[in-house]
Formats: sequence, C-alpha cells, structure tokens
Amino acid sequence: MGDFEMNAQTNRNANPGGLDALFRPRSIAVIGASDDSRKIGGRPIRYMQEAQSTVKVYPVNPTRPQVQGLKAYPSAAAIGEPVDQAIIAVPARQAEEAVADACAAGVRSIVMFTAGFAEAGEEGAAAQARILKMIRDSGARLLGPNAMGSFNTADQIFSTFSTAMDRGTPAVGRVGMVSQSGAVGSYLQNLVISRGMAISKFVATGNEADVQAAECLEWMAQDADTDVLMLYMEGCRNGPALVRALRTARRMKKPVIVFKAGRTEAGQTVAASHTGALAGSVQVFDTVLREAGAWSCQTLTEMVDVTYACAQGRLPVDKTLAIITVSGGVGVMSTDAAMEAGIELPPISKATLAAIQAELPLAVGLNPVDTTAQTVGDRTILTRTVERVLRDRPFGSAMLFFSNVGRNAKDMAILAEPLAALRAEFSQMQLALCVQTTPEFKQQLEGLGYLIFEDPAFCVKALAAAAELSLLRGLPLELPDVREIEPISLRQSPDEAQSKAILAKARLPFAEEHVAASADEAVAAAEAVGYPAVIKVLSAQIAHKSEVGGVALNLKDAAAVREAFARVIGNAGQAEPDADIRGVTVAPMIVGGVQTIIGAHRDSTFGPVVMFGLGGIYTEILKDTVLRTAPVTREAALDMIRSIRTFSILDGARGQEKADLDAIADAIVAVSHFIAAQGPEVESVEINPFIALPKGGFGVDALIHIGQA
Amino acid sequence: MGDFEMNAQTNRNANPGGLDALFRPRSIAVIGASDDSRKIGGRPIRYMQEAQSTVKVYPVNPTRPQVQGLKAYPSAAAIGEPVDQAIIAVPARQAEEAVADACAAGVRSIVMFTAGFAEAGEEGAAAQARILKMIRDSGARLLGPNAMGSFNTADQIFSTFSTAMDRGTPAVGRVGMVSQSGAVGSYLQNLVISRGMAISKFVATGNEADVQAAECLEWMAQDADTDVLMLYMEGCRNGPALVRALRTARRMKKPVIVFKAGRTEAGQTVAASHTGALAGSVQVFDTVLREAGAWSCQTLTEMVDVTYACAQGRLPVDKTLAIITVSGGVGVMSTDAAMEAGIELPPISKATLAAIQAELPLAVGLNPVDTTAQTVGDRTILTRTVERVLRDRPFGSAMLFFSNVGRNAKDMAILAEPLAALRAEFSQMQLALCVQTTPEFKQQLEGLGYLIFEDPAFCVKALAAAAELSLLRGLPLELPDVREIEPISLRQSPDEAQSKAILAKARLPFAEEHVAASADEAVAAAEAVGYPAVIKVLSAQIAHKSEVGGVALNLKDAAAVREAFARVIGNAGQAEPDADIRGVTVAPMIVGGVQTIIGAHRDSTFGPVVMFGLGGIYTEILKDTVLRTAPVTREAALDMIRSIRTFSILDGARGQEKADLDAIADAIVAVSHFIAAQGPEVESVEINPFIALPKGGFGVDALIHIGQA
Repeated sequence: MGDFEMNAQTNRNANPGGLDALFRPRSIAVIGASDDSRKIGGRPIRYMQEAQSTVKVYPVNPTRPQVQGLKAYPSAAAIGEPVDQAIIAVPARQAEEAVADACAAGVRSIVMFTAGFAEAGEEGAAAQARILKMIRDSGARLLGPNAMGSFNTADQIFSTFSTAMDRGTPAVGRVGMVSQSGAVGSYLQNLVISRGMAISKFVATGNEADVQAAECLEWMAQDADTDVLMLYMEGCRNGPALVRALRTARRMKKPVIVFKAGRTEAGQTVAASHTGALAGSVQVFDTVLREAGAWSCQTLTEMVDVTYACAQGRLPVDKTLAIITVSGGVGVMSTDAAMEAGIELPPISKATLAAIQAELPLAVGLNPVDTTAQTVGDRTILTRTVERVLRDRPFGSAMLFFSNVGRNAKDMAILAEPLAALRAEFSQMQLALCVQTTPEFKQQLEGLGYLIFEDPAFCVKALAAAAELSLLRGLPLELPDVREIEPISLRQSPDEAQSKAILAKARLPFAEEHVAASADEAVAAAEAVGYPAVIKVLSAQIAHKSEVGGVALNLKDAAAVREAFARVIGNAGQAEPDADIRGVTVAPMIVGGVQTIIGAHRDSTFGPVVMFGLGGIYTEILKDTVLRTAPVTREAALDMIRSIRTFSILDGARGQEKADLDAIADAIVAVSHFIAAQGPEVESVEINPFIALPKGGFGVDALIHIGQA
Repeated sequence: MGDFEMNAQTNRNANPGGLDALFRPRSIAVIGASDDSRKIGGRPIRYMQEAQSTVKVYPVNPTRPQVQGLKAYPSAAAIGEPVDQAIIAVPARQAEEAVADACAAGVRSIVMFTAGFAEAGEEGAAAQARILKMIRDSGARLLGPNAMGSFNTADQIFSTFSTAMDRGTPAVGRVGMVSQSGAVGSYLQNLVISRGMAISKFVATGNEADVQAAECLEWMAQDADTDVLMLYMEGCRNGPALVRALRTARRMKKPVIVFKAGRTEAGQTVAASHTGALAGSVQVFDTVLREAGAWSCQTLTEMVDVTYACAQGRLPVDKTLAIITVSGGVGVMSTDAAMEAGIELPPISKATLAAIQAELPLAVGLNPVDTTAQTVGDRTILTRTVERVLRDRPFGSAMLFFSNVGRNAKDMAILAEPLAALRAEFSQMQLALCVQTTPEFKQQLEGLGYLIFEDPAFCVKALAAAAELSLLRGLPLELPDVREIEPISLRQSPDEAQSKAILAKARLPFAEEHVAASADEAVAAAEAVGYPAVIKVLSAQIAHKSEVGGVALNLKDAAAVREAFARVIGNAGQAEPDADIRGVTVAPMIVGGVQTIIGAHRDSTFGPVVMFGLGGIYTEILKDTVLRTAPVTREAALDMIRSIRTFSILDGARGQEKADLDAIADAIVAVSHFIAAQGPEVESVEINPFIALPKGGFGVDALIHIGQA
C-alpha cells in the first residue's frame, strides 16, 4: 500500500480537468494492436470502427503493415502525427518499452490493458513503479495497468476491451459508470443496457497506479453529459478523494449508486488478492457513503434497479407511495416491502374509495387500493381508478401493479392513451408500473415516462432508494468546524487518569476520582469521595483492569480500601510484571444508569470517526454500534443515539427512567471534536463505560491510544 | 373465521383423491359463458379452444344459441350429457342459482370465479355459506368463490381466467403451483414461464370455502406429473392440513418453495382485508415451514429463482460450492453472498492452481478461482480450468461466472461442446452459469443441463436454498412421541407456587421454595433455605410481581424477612385490591448464572409451540427468541439454544463460565411435552427466568395461563 498512498498524495492532477486527457482524446495509438478483432489488442480498433468513430486510430504493430484494414506503425513515436492517447495491449514483458514509446510520442494519457503488475506480486509491483515514474516524468496520466479501459459514447471513444461491446456500439446515454474491476464493469454495462438505459462515460480503473476511481467519479460528477453515477468498488485507496467526489456529485445533484464488494471477512480476503486495495472497514465505508448522500447496494440487481429509478431524471419528492393494484396479494407483499424500506403509504380519503367503488364495487383498501379482478374485462376503469387515487392527495411516487397487461396487445392499445394522460397530469410524481410485458411494450411504456419493474418488492425498494437519494441531496453540505483543541503531544499512551484529565479539558464529564499511590492516600481519597468506593489499578500498560484482578468494587470502609489496595496492586504486578504501576484511582461506587460506550478512532482510509453503543455485550456480541465521521454536530449525535437497535433501553423501556440523551450527545460531540483535532499518532479514544443517567452522565473509564504517527 | 374453521374440520374429502374431480374433469360446463373471449366468462372457453383440448366444453348462456362458435345451453341441467365440472362466471346475484343448476347437472366439482362473497362483507359471507351447504349436500367440491381457477397442462384443462394465458397455451411442465391469490398466481405463472420453466398443475383457491391451498398442495405432492411445488399464501385456515401436506411433499422428495405474504403488521392488516384469512404469527409460520423442510422466500424473484434451481430435478448433495470466475470482483461479491447464505467454499489444492497457472499465469485463488481477463481471446482455456477445479475435489455445486459470453456467437460456438462434456463428467453436481446471454443461447445452455443466472448473488442464494432443501429432505420424518403427562384440569390459571408444582411433575427443576402465609412462616422458611433470601407475593392474579412492589431481594436476617413480608403483602394489596393473595414464596437468593426464558403457547393455527430466549431485554427488546412446534427432541432443543443470536452469552463469552446447555435443553423438552399433552384450555406456560448455571439450572418463576377451551 505504501506506493498507493504516496500516489494519492502526489497526484499533480487532483483537479478533475486532468482526466479530459483520458476521456476525450481525439487521436489514439493502440500499441500491441491485433488484427484479430476478438483479442484484447484488437477490440478497441474494432469498436471504434463499428461506431464509425471520428477519432483517429493508429494501430502500432511492428510485424504488420496493416491491422484490421488500418495502416499500422512500428512504434507510436513513428506515427508522425499528434497522438493524444496510447492504449497499451502488449504482453507484460514488453510493457515498459511500450510506455516509453508512448511517452516519446507525447501522449497525454495511457490506457494500459496489460496485466501482471502490482496484482501479480513483488516483481510486478516494481515494474509498475517504474512505469509510474516514466508517466510522471512525461506529464501524462495512466489508467491501469490491468485496466479494462474507458469509453465515452457521445464522442465515440472506445479505449476498452469490454466484451459488453459484442452486442454492438452502445447508445449515447446519461449514466456514468466507474468500476475498479473491469469484468464487473463490463458486466454491469451489459445489465444497464439490458435494462433499457444507456451510458455516457465508462471507466474501469484496474490497478490504479495513477488514476483512481474517486477521481473518475469526481470528473463524471462535473461532466455535462452525465446525470447519474454508478460506482463499483472493492477498496478505496484515498478516502478523502472519495468523500470529495461524493460531495461534488451531491452538489451537482447527481445521484451516486455504489456497490462495495467485500462485506464479509472472507469476501475481503478475496478482494485483497484481487486488486490489492485494502478493503477497509465495511461499517466506516457505509457511514461515509450515507453521510455523503450516496446509496449503497447489496447486489448488482439492486444497483441496476436503483440507477434505473434515477435515470429518467425525476426523483420522488418524499417517501410517500400510492399503491394501486389489480392483486390484493401484491398489495400485501408491497406493503411488507414498503414497511421494510421505510416507505409511507398514506391513506386516501374514504370519499375517494367510495367514488372508486361506484365503478368497482369490490374495490378495497385506502392504500394499497385493490381493484380486484373486476378490471380484467375493461381496463379503462384501471386508469380512471389510478387518477382518482393520485388526485386524492400528493404522493412522492405511485406504483401501479397491472399484472400481465404488458403481454396483451388489446390491453396495451386501451391503456396507452390514459397512461400518457396520467403521466402528463402528475408530472412531478415518480410513476412506476409493475407489470409483465413484452420488450416492445416495455419500451413504449418507458417512452411514456413510466418506470417498469417486474418484482413489486424490488420496485418498492428502488423507489425508496430514489426517495432517500432525493432527500439526502437536500441536506446541507456544510461540515461542522472542528473545535479548537490543542493537540496532545505524546509518544506513548497515557494512563487512565491522564486520559481522563486530557478528555476533561475537551469538555468530557467524568466521575470524581483521585489518584492514590499508597494505601493511606487511597483511604484519604475514599473518605473524600464517600463510601462505598471503587479502586482500580492505574497503569498505562494495563488496559483491561478487571481481567488482571485490578479492580475492587463496593468498598464500604477504610479497612476494606486498605485491604483492596494491597490486593489490586499485587494482582496487577503479578499479571503484568513489566507494567509501570502508578498506584490506583479511587472513585465513588456508582449504581444505576445505563452503561454506554463512546469511542473514536482514526480509520486508515477515511480518517477520524466517532462511535456510540451500549456497553458490554451490546457492543461486543450484538455489534449494536453506530459510526459517524468526526466531528459531528449535536443533531448528528442525537441521531446516532436514536439509531442503535437497542435505543429503547435508553428511552425508558421496561419501566426505567429515560436516559439524558442530550448529555450523551454532548459527550459524543466532545469526543468527535477531540479526535478530529489530534494528529495521526492518536489512534483511538474510548470512554467505556459512559454512564447515562436520567439527568446528566459521566465517563467512568477512559483510554487514549497513541500509535506510531 | 368461525365458518372456515368448521369447514376445515368437516371436509369429507380430506384424502387427496377428492381433488381429482377438480383437476381432471373430462367435461366442463361454463355457466355465464361469454362470447367475448377477453371476459372472465369467455376466457376458459378460448383457452381450451386454443389448446385444442379434448375436454368437452359446454357453454351455458340462456341468451345465445352459440358462444365462441360452440353450441350454448340455457342451463347446465339442460346439457343432457354427463358433466364433471362447472365453471361459474355469473354476477354474484345469480351465483346461487348457478350453483343449484350445476348441482342439478350432477357435477363433481365447481370452479367459482364469481366474487363478492365472504371477502365483501357479511351479506356475501351468508351467501357463501348457503352455497357451501348446497355443494356439501350434492357431494361436489367447490373451488372458490372469488377464485381464478385451476389448470392441468398435460390434460389440457384450463378452468381459469388467468391472464397469463394471453401469451399462449402453456407448455406441459413439472412445476405445481398453488396460490391463495389469483392475481399473484397468474403473475407467478408468467414469471415461471419467462424463466423457461413449465407448469404441470395450477390452482388459485380464492375464498377457500371448501377446497384450501393445503389440500391442493398435498394432492400435487402425490401427482406423478409434478416434481417441484410452489405455494403462495397469505394466511392458513388449517395448520395441521398444511403441515401434513408439507410432510407428504417431503416424503415424496418434492421441494416446496413458499412465499408467505404479510410479514409486517401493516402487511397482515392488508392481508386480512384481502382473503379474510388470519395472517397468523410469522415466526410460527416460518418455524413450521422450516421444520417441514420447505423453503420460505422473501420476494417473488427469490421464489422463481429457487424453484428454477430445483426444477431440473437435480439438487446439490451438500452446501459446498466451487466458484470459477473470469472476474475477481464477482469472486468477491459471490464470496460475500456465500458467507451470508451459509455456503462453504472449500479450497482446491495448490497443485491444481499451479496446473491452471501453467495456462493462465495470472490466475489466482483457490476458491473462488479467478481466471482474470486472460481468457478473453481464447475461451477454451475457460472450460479446461473449470474441469481442473471440479476434478480437484467433490463439490455440491459449481458456479461458473463467464460474464458476457452468452451474447457472443463465436464464444458460444467454442464453448458448447466442452460445456456439454463438463455436464456429462460431473453428472451429480449442480452446475450454474452466471452469464449474460441472448434468449436463444440461454435455451441452448439450459438444454445442456446448466442453470442460468444473471446476478451472481442471486445464483449463490438459489444454490444455497436448493442445497438446504436437499439436506432437509434427508432428515427423518418421525415426530417424537408425546410423553404421558396427565393433562391438568383447571378452570382458571394457577398461581406461581401451583404452577411450579404442576411443572415439577413434568420434570422441570425449580429452586427450593416455600409458601408462607404469615411473617412467622416466612422467617421459618428463610431459615430453612438459608440467607440471603428472596420473598415474592403469591397470587394467581398478580403476574408481574416486581411492578406492584411484590418482591423483596437479598434479605439477610429474620428481621429483614419480617419487615419485607409486611411490605410486600401491603404493596400488592394496594396495587391489586381484588387479587386473592395467598401469602408469599420464600426462596434462596440466587447470584450468577444466565437468565433465560422457556415458554410455550398454543398457536391458533398450528397448535403447541415451545419458545426459548435469554431473559429481559433480549426477549422483550431484541426479540431474540426461537420457536419449535412441540414436543421437541433433546437435539432439537439444543439446536434451538444454539440458534439464538446471543448464544455466545451462554457459551462463555466475556470470560464467563459456559452454561449447562444440557440442563436448558432438558427443561425445553419438558415444557414442550407438557404443553403438547394439555388440552386446548392451557394457552401458555412461561418459566421466566430459568437460570442456566455452569452445572444445572432451574426455574425461578413460572406461570401457566388457562384460557377458554
């Protein structure tokens, strides 16, 4: 990773304009051009010929006078005309020579198909580093190596060997696609085309020696030909660049739909061997995406569905949905799906239902509205019913389940005009038809401005995602200022008492506590805080005090404290003979309240994040924790608290008093600002437990971990 | 529901043979026959004509001499030939007359399309009851009313108005489909056909006045023309009949794939208004399905995918999967999907990988095996690689991700023969191709015996489901005998001490405990059990003792017991003035152990079930409980314990001693036998908490709830 991190920081072309050289060349040399149009080195030539591209293509092949009917050159440098881009499709052992040739020809960008570099071991990594240096020296940009390339439909540039092109030159569309994996990208390309969409720009970034997915995403977010962005990732080499790209997309009001593979530990292991990018924490990645207003998918199907729901350029204004269905059963399953996706189904008025029932006596339900099978003989009632429902009250979206009508020419002939009228009347509403249809009728219905789905649950889920994307892009883009907190400057982790003192300055409240170096001091401290008291061994080297017998609870008098002091110091010394033991901390015994954990750490990809959860098994076994990038606002902290699954425990479940959420939120905010203000050597902070009381709350234990900066 | 329950118990034709009259008529009268072939009363006539069916069809329509070219009759009774079945497609107001006519004609079955009965309110329910009586008196069977009907492709019988038939007469297949909802059924029919499968028998049961989904399922489970069963349900009117049908299917080795709509509370409300069937507990329904070896789906897409994975008649022998992929990224996402679906990816040997790398130097991974893009130019290497992997060790299934090859005629021409050879060599293995393909190539590949999927995650999930169905059908069908426990005979719920005494006889261990009616008796009891002691108010009317101040803990001497007795009795009397307070129970104070809950109740649809979970918030807030139908074996009880999400708390998490799982299992078994042996008046039993100790365990509190039998 060392190389990649360096690259991320030294990219000269951090401005998106730097990628014009990649996406908009007007002349391309194909080094390693093949006369076989099925081979990697033959495909881009064939694709541009099939597209009748106006881009100048120069095959470079020293063994042939012609390649696929075009004059071939012995080298790029020998072309003798200006060449904007070189595609490199030679075997790995000839790659460095080819790069040198391209640089000599003065190209501004290189698209490197050739594989066998950083992904193939140390030798390959060294060769990749040498290539990168050549590119840097020449001022060109490099896509790859091991990249499937890029294309630009509007300008008929197909610098790719994507096999999805086998179905013909792709139509010009408005979906931008960025994939780290070439094969996933070309497969997605095909799925997107099969779904009736078309692509504006495509890039598969491969080894990302220079150009990375995030930079491509940011460039496409500013591309006038692109409205919706798809991003497939396995690992992110530059977190801040990705965040910046996502925020640019949000500012440009372009929905970003992301598939991040490697959700499981096993999947991450495979990912590491695939692209060499560290997979990183799934939870942090999801947090970053959500905060930036992107949609994170679990399957390719979901990714294509959500993109499709956004690709007509109309997003639902809110999460309300009207369901009009010819099937009560579909009403049931769609309601299930709506509840699970957080979609609301506001009821229409009884008067409207009564009006519907005047035509359809058996119609039932205020939302879903079930027409029953009564419309089988006369489909015109169907659209009249839809019209009545949609006029009843505003909805963000409507799903019309019309069953098999899209396979029936007579039904379609009857429905086309009223469906067009509905589309015109409810122009702001997202309208989806859930229907089985022939390809021709599907196209016709899409032409009218309807989304077409087959599975009602998928339809509801995609509408929910589109509504969420719509709402997220309305949220403010401002980030909270980081409080002015003096960075601590420590070479090693402070002990508990020092940690608390540091955090107290950052506005964290702690229980009263005294440090005692002797039994006498411990007794004096216990008298000061009051009995019963608690003593805990104090050593920067002992993080888990209970496990070494370093804690004594519920000490009721001086004798007990004295005895406990000796025991605790003795236990700790025996368990950790090398630990530097400063003595003990003495604090009052606390009863009641809810144990929570407030933590923060520095993610290797995305930087400081803050964490909240309930204590003990809730965090350790149930993994019921929530993250945000730090710092957070008070509103965000309250949202964190409310979003744990076990929130009801803080909210007065089982007859207990409600915890003081504001006090917890203040502590989360304080920890988040603390970590954000620190240098990279501060790896993590944990306040465990932070006791949330009905009024107030305070930390009982705290640890700051210092690593190697 | 009263009517339906009665029907369930009084069905005379509980033997599946009773449905031959429904599925295999040789002559059919269509009462309410329409000359318009798009109307409900016209469709079955058109469908049978289009199919050139040999079944005799008699249109009944008093206003016309001919209907769709066939001679029409004024009534069914006037046909003058034997008529096996009547389809009724008249308006609701004429329906009773039509039924009377059909009965007079001597039909053995009636398929009643007409709607507006029990689903439409009280008046309709009364009419439905009258119709049912007519049918019962005549000895015929009734499908519906409000039913989309049934069909039988092998015998060309299409007693349905399903609009899915608009795409032509369905091919003869081996998938049996049972749906409570007509519209969902016809939609599923179309999805199944679009997926390249074909149907043997179809039925949509509508209001289920007589014939219910469960009986149809059992009939199809015994149908020689049917291999795989699909069941769509919203609510079950007869739990035992459904269990019997599912068990019959399992005995016949026919996989059952179920979609149960109404998973959420909102969905259940919609379901209740749709078919009038009570939705019932989702958790119990899922438990019953799993126990019976059926697969429960969340979406129609999943239902079709899993059916498809089973429909070729080959199920994976186990849950091992080999993944060979041209895309590392797909390897990553498929690994994620495999982990989430509980699929194993056993590694191939390094020697095999080395052999693969001899041809494909960049190939990587032991499973998934990633060929990388090196095969783009020569696809024959692909199948040689697959062969090497599959020869390396046995797998239950293999997924070959070949990306876009199914859209490339040259690739297909190269691959067809080696794919056929692979299929022949690994004849026991389930082989799935994850690939984008034209419809023609898809058919060709399916013809070779490959399953074809587009989404790798869906493919893995369907293979996992098929493997699970394969493993489940190997499990024994025997049910445990119910222990001989004398049913208790009580008119009202016993108090805690009585409940414990009853359950102790059923082999449940409880902590030592004494009943004390006075402070003196309480002190004597505390001396007997030892200090510290606990006292709890004893009253059959007070279930939640803590909440009325009826519990005193940690009483260390006689004075404390005496004081607590007065306080507890006083608190309880004040909180529940009408309660009959027998005194208190006195028990030793227990420290340590894990609080669990063992409960049982009588589900209104499926009968006695037993429940296990951890105490307090785990059950109440996290809903982390597990069910089984009662009684259970010890193995099943252990499986229940291990399947809660928080099992690690019992298994020594956080350095605690492991709980005695056998002791918990014995208690679950005992409770399960107890509830199973009782009469219907015993509604529920709860032992809360049952304390699980490192050695042994015992109940601390117990309640038996008696309802109205």
